[in-house]
Amino acid sequence: MNVVSLKEKYALISEYWKPRIAGELNGQQVKLAKIKGEFVWHKHEEEDELFLVVNGILNIEFRDKTVTLHPNEFIIVPRGVEHKPVAKEEVELLLFEPKGTINTGDAEGEKTVNNPDWI
Amino acid sequence: MNVVSLKEKYALISEYWKPRIAGELNGQQVKLAKIKGEFVWHKHEEEDELFLVVNGILNIEFRDKTVTLHPNEFIIVPRGVEHKPVAKEEVELLLFEPKGTINTGDAEGEKTVNNPDWI
Repeated sequence: MNVVSLKEKYALISEYWKPRIAGELNGQQVKLAKIKGEFVWHKHEEEDELFLVVNGILNIEFRDKTVTLHPNEFIIVPRGVEHKPVAKEEVELLLFEPKGTINTGDAEGEKTVNNPDWI
Repeated sequence: MNVVSLKEKYALISEYWKPRIAGELNGQQVKLAKIKGEFVWHKHEEEDELFLVVNGILNIEFRDKTVTLHPNEFIIVPRGVEHKPVAKEEVELLLFEPKGTINTGDAEGEKTVNNPDWI
């Protein structure tokens, strides 16, 4: 049972779009990622997904709108909803989602991370 | 599906120790609270609980140690572990925990909030 410093953890992350597991509780995981650029359109069939921006500005594109998140803002993307994260500059992101959620959902490809490492 | 600004939500909270629900996903809830002073010793029999400090400095006392959390630091308190949050000055706190988790766990009393309001 340790205190987790987001700042210290992000300092250990060098690769974009590679989520790392920072905590687990009640079958859910806290994941940390640095992202920059455009992700892929995808959805998660059975998982709702929370995006909390820690640093930077994140756009999330939906089929009917785009939302912008600043630091200390979050959004919950319900299961089944297609989305595409886009970050013009580096974003430090915290995700909260069920254990086993695949980052690319139904759009497996080169950005897919099947078994994220702990950090 | 809205962007939730923690700053805007905390500005709406005036009472200490009254968690408000800011989001729900996968049977879990995001709760926001302002706290100041000493809480009660308690544990949750079936729920792990994540404390993320957004602003302020939070001490969490355990039976064998005390930990200190600064902004952007979190800890996961496993089910069954007795704990007592203490904040000398105001703390803005984000909690992740299963829907229905009672703030005072097994120590029902004057600080118990059975059905938190959404914010």
